[in-house]
Amino acid sequence: MTKWIKDSEEDPVVISSRIRLARNLKNDTFPLYSSKEEAANTLEKIQEVVQEIFSDGEYEFYNLEQLEPRDRMRFMENHLISPGLVEQTGKSAFYLRNDERATIMINEEDHLRLQTLLPGLRLNEAWEECEQIDDYLESKLDYAFHPEYGYLTSCPTNVGTGLRASVMLHLPAMTMTGYIMGLMDALKRIGLTIRGIYGEGTEAVGHLYQISNQLTLGETEQEIIKKIDEIATEVKNREKNTRNFIMENRKIEIEDKVYRAIGIVQNARMITSNEAMEQISIVKLGADLGLIEGEKYNNLIELMMNIKPGNIQYRSNKTMDRTERDVLRANIIREYFR
Amino acid sequence: MTKWIKDSEEDPVVISSRIRLARNLKNDTFPLYSSKEEAANTLEKIQEVVQEIFSDGEYEFYNLEQLEPRDRMRFMENHLISPGLVEQTGKSAFYLRNDERATIMINEEDHLRLQTLLPGLRLNEAWEECEQIDDYLESKLDYAFHPEYGYLTSCPTNVGTGLRASVMLHLPAMTMTGYIMGLMDALKRIGLTIRGIYGEGTEAVGHLYQISNQLTLGETEQEIIKKIDEIATEVKNREKNTRNFIMENRKIEIEDKVYRAIGIVQNARMITSNEAMEQISIVKLGADLGLIEGEKYNNLIELMMNIKPGNIQYRSNKTMDRTERDVLRANIIREYFR
Repeated sequence: MTKWIKDSEEDPVVISSRIRLARNLKNDTFPLYSSKEEAANTLEKIQEVVQEIFSDGEYEFYNLEQLEPRDRMRFMENHLISPGLVEQTGKSAFYLRNDERATIMINEEDHLRLQTLLPGLRLNEAWEECEQIDDYLESKLDYAFHPEYGYLTSCPTNVGTGLRASVMLHLPAMTMTGYIMGLMDALKRIGLTIRGIYGEGTEAVGHLYQISNQLTLGETEQEIIKKIDEIATEVKNREKNTRNFIMENRKIEIEDKVYRAIGIVQNARMITSNEAMEQISIVKLGADLGLIEGEKYNNLIELMMNIKPGNIQYRSNKTMDRTERDVLRANIIREYFR
Repeated sequence: MTKWIKDSEEDPVVISSRIRLARNLKNDTFPLYSSKEEAANTLEKIQEVVQEIFSDGEYEFYNLEQLEPRDRMRFMENHLISPGLVEQTGKSAFYLRNDERATIMINEEDHLRLQTLLPGLRLNEAWEECEQIDDYLESKLDYAFHPEYGYLTSCPTNVGTGLRASVMLHLPAMTMTGYIMGLMDALKRIGLTIRGIYGEGTEAVGHLYQISNQLTLGETEQEIIKKIDEIATEVKNREKNTRNFIMENRKIEIEDKVYRAIGIVQNARMITSNEAMEQISIVKLGADLGLIEGEKYNNLIELMMNIKPGNIQYRSNKTMDRTERDVLRANIIREYFR
């Protein structure tokens, strides 16, 4: 269900690396302002080029309008498409590569949003893949490009490289100790942001965070990627040091938290998505710290994705109300941890 | 450790019945106002009579001052002595019968507080036992008694019969549904009180409540006991009906609560007394409702008593700080539920 995450166990802290490029066609109205006909026209142009460039069956095509709402949600939960693409349902569509590591989004806020997504800390590799897809498309499409400002985009914050590089990190120890607050301030000062994934505002569900660049102008792609790569390595080390500190100074407290979380995931009969992510996150911390005797739990990040509302409904192939989802989610999780 | 509670499984709702009589010696100063010498004199007088009346070894004598604070706490937690007796340490003492079902407290707020405590709903039996002890003592001691007002006591609220009859009930379903609030109002109107045991104010720890009479004047002992007995039966039936209602209408929610509680008691590495009582209470509800497959858990009320701070320290025969107690408590509970 979430192919890209399958290999994300390679690093216990850095879950994934993502590159996103924003591009637009020179003579077409930005999708937020275009008529349905204009958008359909843009889509058709891009579809022709994609079909010409890539071999049959390498990418699968999806029109958002033709997907069940629960399937749109699932693609979004798995980070394969953006919330902005879903908002543009009626105009928007996407191509997903078979390995689920590359997406070509059409008629999001920009005509094109190219994304590559790799497990672990592999921003350079993700960048090379994304750049190649971009080069292919640019050879056939007339991009909106300004010699001084660079790539032109719908929102001024993306003008220039159109690049957003980001890493997803699992930071339970820095969250529990509150060190995450200081990190947020520090990153802001060097033009980066860290924010919770899935949460409202700065709240992080499941202790999952994303670090990304705020600026797309004034720095080259290589500079942006190098900065994020270095910071991710630094944050990863801090998280590891914090875990060691907890193990040395507050071992009984962390053991208590971990075993209570195991008690919940093995026993709950109903559980919300947010609580499940929280509890599974703590179990993962326990597994990473070697605190859990006997059992070995793998692919816990994948489990966190798989029990989100869209994925739950995709699995059972029907639309469910909140209580039904909470019950099914608890069953899936109990089964996993049995 | 808590003999009287051993048989309290006989009724899943009414845990125990207690009778308490307040008595004073005619010519002695009330203990709250007496000098240490006067109190010692009263104590000596009563000791002589008790030793004369009861056979050797039937009762064990304890002087509060000579007990470790943790042991005072333990006797209080197990309802064998009153908080008021502990407050009078330096003057106070008590005789505890071997079966732990009768206590003669000396120099509490009154010179004598006689208590009988039986498992289940057995107020009449408790009354007969307490009356007999009272009759024995009255035949040898000069009680303060007024022909019109009855037995005179330190606090006017006890004047008359000097009787407080009470029952301890386990009311998890009525607590969860909030019906307990209506019950509190209703009982107040007929001169009875219901309050949480161990909790602050009206909060009930472990869903344990005590119903008792507020008035000691104007009603005979038999009338008071009959009223409490009838009300306890009524409340017990309401609790049972509420449990049936929950099972019919909110089964998945109650299953979830029960299994989560099992997850906690089987896994926690640290747990406070209040949380432990809460979780064990929910497990007991699950056991009483037949929700728990496989395992059969007995004596859960006894376990709730045994993990309180005084009992925990009595068991390990040393004074412990809060964290040590929380860790030991979690170990005892895990061991029990393994």
